[in-house]
Amino acid sequence: MADFIITTFDWVPEFPRGYVRDLRARWALEEAGLIYDVQSVSFDDRKSNHFEHQPFGQVPWLTNGNISIFESGAILLHIGECSENLLPVEPRERAQVQQWLFAALNSVEMASLPWFIFKFTDGDSESPEQKRISEFLDSRLQYMEKVLAHTKWLAKSFSIADIAMTDVLRLVHRFDGLESYPNCREYVIRATSRPKFEKAYKDQLAHFAAADKQ
Amino acid sequence: MADFIITTFDWVPEFPRGYVRDLRARWALEEAGLIYDVQSVSFDDRKSNHFEHQPFGQVPWLTNGNISIFESGAILLHIGECSENLLPVEPRERAQVQQWLFAALNSVEMASLPWFIFKFTDGDSESPEQKRISEFLDSRLQYMEKVLAHTKWLAKSFSIADIAMTDVLRLVHRFDGLESYPNCREYVIRATSRPKFEKAYKDQLAHFAAADKQ
Repeated sequence: MADFIITTFDWVPEFPRGYVRDLRARWALEEAGLIYDVQSVSFDDRKSNHFEHQPFGQVPWLTNGNISIFESGAILLHIGECSENLLPVEPRERAQVQQWLFAALNSVEMASLPWFIFKFTDGDSESPEQKRISEFLDSRLQYMEKVLAHTKWLAKSFSIADIAMTDVLRLVHRFDGLESYPNCREYVIRATSRPKFEKAYKDQLAHFAAADKQ
Repeated sequence: MADFIITTFDWVPEFPRGYVRDLRARWALEEAGLIYDVQSVSFDDRKSNHFEHQPFGQVPWLTNGNISIFESGAILLHIGECSENLLPVEPRERAQVQQWLFAALNSVEMASLPWFIFKFTDGDSESPEQKRISEFLDSRLQYMEKVLAHTKWLAKSFSIADIAMTDVLRLVHRFDGLESYPNCREYVIRATSRPKFEKAYKDQLAHFAAADKQ
C-alpha cells in the first residue's frame, strides 16, 4: 500500500469534474514525486466514517500512516513538509510560501467562492449583493495582477502556494473572470501547462468517468 | 527591540475596533509568552512600503528578524512553529492543529465573511443571494456544533487553530449569528475568557483609542 492515500468521492456530476479539490492533493503529490493511491467514498450516501475524517462531509482527505488530514490547505502543507522542493526548510523562504498559501485560500478564494456561488444563484446580477461580491473579487485580482507582473511563481520557485493559487484562479478563469487580468491568466496557463498538473487533471477525469461505466 | 513586531493600522473607525486581525497575532504571541512590539502604518495613506509587506494593502503583518509575513493564518502558523504549546511537534497532533487552522479560515470564515459583508450591504435580506449565503453559513455552523459538542478545544489542547476559529466565530456571535448554536457560543465564551485573549483585546482597543487623542 502506498504511503499516501487520497480519499475523494466515488462519483460527482459532470459540472465539477476537473475542479474537485482532490486535484490539489494529486497535483502536489505528483510534483513531490511521492507514491499515492486514490480511494473512494460515496457521494450520495455520506456515512459516519466520512465525517470522522472530514467533519463537513466534503472531500478530499489525505491519510499518511496514522495521520488523517482534511482541508486542502492543510493537505498541501503536510505534503510540503514531506517535500522540500514544494516547501523550503529555510525559514524566510518557508514563510513566503506559507503566506501565499494562506493568501490563495483566505484572500483570493474568500472572494472567488461567493462570486462563483452567485453565478449559479437565481438572482439579479445587478443586485447590491452581486455587485458587492464582484467588487470584492476585483479588488483582490487587481492586487494579484500587480504581484504577478514581475514574478513567475509566488515564492522563489514553484511551491504548494502556486498549486493553491492556480486552482483558485483557474475556476475564476473558467467563468471568464480573468478577462481584465492578463498576468493572472498567463500565470494560470503557465502553471496548468506543467506535466504534473496535466496528469493530476486527467487522472481526476478518469476517476469519475470510470464511475459512470459501473 | 523585540524579536517579533506586529504592524497594524495607526487608526481605524470605531466599528471594527476589537476585531482587527492583528488581534490574532497579539493573542497568539501572548499565549506563547513571546515578547513583541506593535508598530503602526497609516490607515488613510497606504504607501508602497505597506504593499511590499502586505500586497493587498491590509493588516497585520509580522516581522521576526529578517522574516516578514502577512496573512493571519500564516502568522499564526509561524508563531506556532516558534511555540510548541500552540502547535505540537508530534506529527499526528500537528496535522490535527493544521487542519483546524485551515478549517477556521477556509471552511467557516469563507462562509461567515460574505454573510457579514451582506449585513452591511443595502440589499434585501430575503434576496436569493442573502438566503444562499445564510444557508451556506448555517451548514458550516451545524457541522461545527456537532464537533464542539464533545471537545473543549479543536485539537488535544488549546492551539493556534482555536485562536483562528474563535476569532471567526466571535464576529458571527457579535451579530447574533450563533443564536441556534449553543456549543459554538460556549466555545467562544470559553476561549475569550482566557486572560491572554482579554489582554490582547484590551491592548488593541487601547492602541486605537490612543490615536483618537492625537
